[in-house]
Amino acid sequence: MRTPTAAALVVGSEVLSAKVQDENGPYLARRLRELGVQLVSLHVVPDRTDAIVEALESVRRRVTWVFTSGGVGPTHDDLTLPAVALALCRPLVRLPELVEVLREAHRRHRGSSDLPEAALRMADVPQGTRLQGDPRFPTLVVENVVMLPGVPAFFRHQFERLAPDLSAPPFRLACVYVTLGEDRLAPLLDRVALDHPAVEIGSYPRFDEADHRVRVTLEGKDLQRVEAALAALLALLSPDAVVRTEGP
Amino acid sequence: MRTPTAAALVVGSEVLSAKVQDENGPYLARRLRELGVQLVSLHVVPDRTDAIVEALESVRRRVTWVFTSGGVGPTHDDLTLPAVALALCRPLVRLPELVEVLREAHRRHRGSSDLPEAALRMADVPQGTRLQGDPRFPTLVVENVVMLPGVPAFFRHQFERLAPDLSAPPFRLACVYVTLGEDRLAPLLDRVALDHPAVEIGSYPRFDEADHRVRVTLEGKDLQRVEAALAALLALLSPDAVVRTEGP
Repeated sequence: MRTPTAAALVVGSEVLSAKVQDENGPYLARRLRELGVQLVSLHVVPDRTDAIVEALESVRRRVTWVFTSGGVGPTHDDLTLPAVALALCRPLVRLPELVEVLREAHRRHRGSSDLPEAALRMADVPQGTRLQGDPRFPTLVVENVVMLPGVPAFFRHQFERLAPDLSAPPFRLACVYVTLGEDRLAPLLDRVALDHPAVEIGSYPRFDEADHRVRVTLEGKDLQRVEAALAALLALLSPDAVVRTEGP
Repeated sequence: MRTPTAAALVVGSEVLSAKVQDENGPYLARRLRELGVQLVSLHVVPDRTDAIVEALESVRRRVTWVFTSGGVGPTHDDLTLPAVALALCRPLVRLPELVEVLREAHRRHRGSSDLPEAALRMADVPQGTRLQGDPRFPTLVVENVVMLPGVPAFFRHQFERLAPDLSAPPFRLACVYVTLGEDRLAPLLDRVALDHPAVEIGSYPRFDEADHRVRVTLEGKDLQRVEAALAALLALLSPDAVVRTEGP
């Protein structure tokens, strides 16, 4: 089975202008990793139709899932739904089931079923959009694009209702903490990376008072291959250069 | 004077795989805002040459500055310098001044001027790269691309040495905290946004126990225009819907 992949598209002028720090990107990165899905791009763009369309077009055909965050409310700067429609060449249509959901929510929270016109905009979605997850607060999905709200609590709620459908075999991670500097370590890592192409090898130097100078990570979906790469690296290192290993 | 713009390109498989939470993107967003520079894209890509090149190509001609973060060390997963060279169609050349800087740093920290071959890789830069800022730990700049290290303390050090050169007139921000929901507010914001195109208007709803339901932001470089948009919005709101205003 091929590893499912994902791209995150945060529609957030407020993040770019540092009014708000993005929580949804890091949340998604962590949860997708746990679910065995490989995040290959995290892009924060302004609340502008052209920027959203372009970012979508550049990733959507290459990944299993695109997750957008934000821009699905009722105001003038909520442009994600029409931008997704444009990127997918689908008309924007008012979804009666979604109007009903909004009306019901309005009744519940405001005690009135008289929905303002602006709120109805939230039911204008790319044709073919499916409502998944929580029927009272459904996740909007069209083709492989999942359109999540920007408010972190809502983002997480809608994501988690979809999460069981995304799950794939887990990543296997081994870490080696070494006292060598990266410049001495580099030729050894080159060698292991070349001999073990199915294992992704990362090198994270530290320049503080920690007990190690570099943390090397070896990661992949195949446990045997990760173990083999780990063994190959340990064989190249002098034992007193290794502070400890973890995993896989 | 046109507002200078910037794009951030974080080269970080470790961020996408949630091994590390990116600090450099948020730092850059905040500092650029303070300096009057508009950040228009923040993209996290894997440590892969093709991904870096493609992300660079899509933004570099549209912004005043591109800041890259990470991928400038000596190991096999440090690919930013060759990728920038490729994207700019420049050969990768070993810069003698940079070799000297590396040799000097090696002498200072390790007491030896015998530089490992892998460390020399860090001196292979796109032809035309300028060394700016701190002569002992110079910032690498080629055309409009500033190539910063991924370690946050080093990233900040090198950025701050360049910051005085980036400074532009500040953004002016006004905030209005209102008790109306976004659905009722939307037509008023539409109206103000239409009449005041030079002012960027944002709408940030809350769903907790705060004293307001939406924070409206009005932002631009021209103080008079921000004040005019603020006055126009306040004229449309009933006074008891406004909890407070701040700025500009």
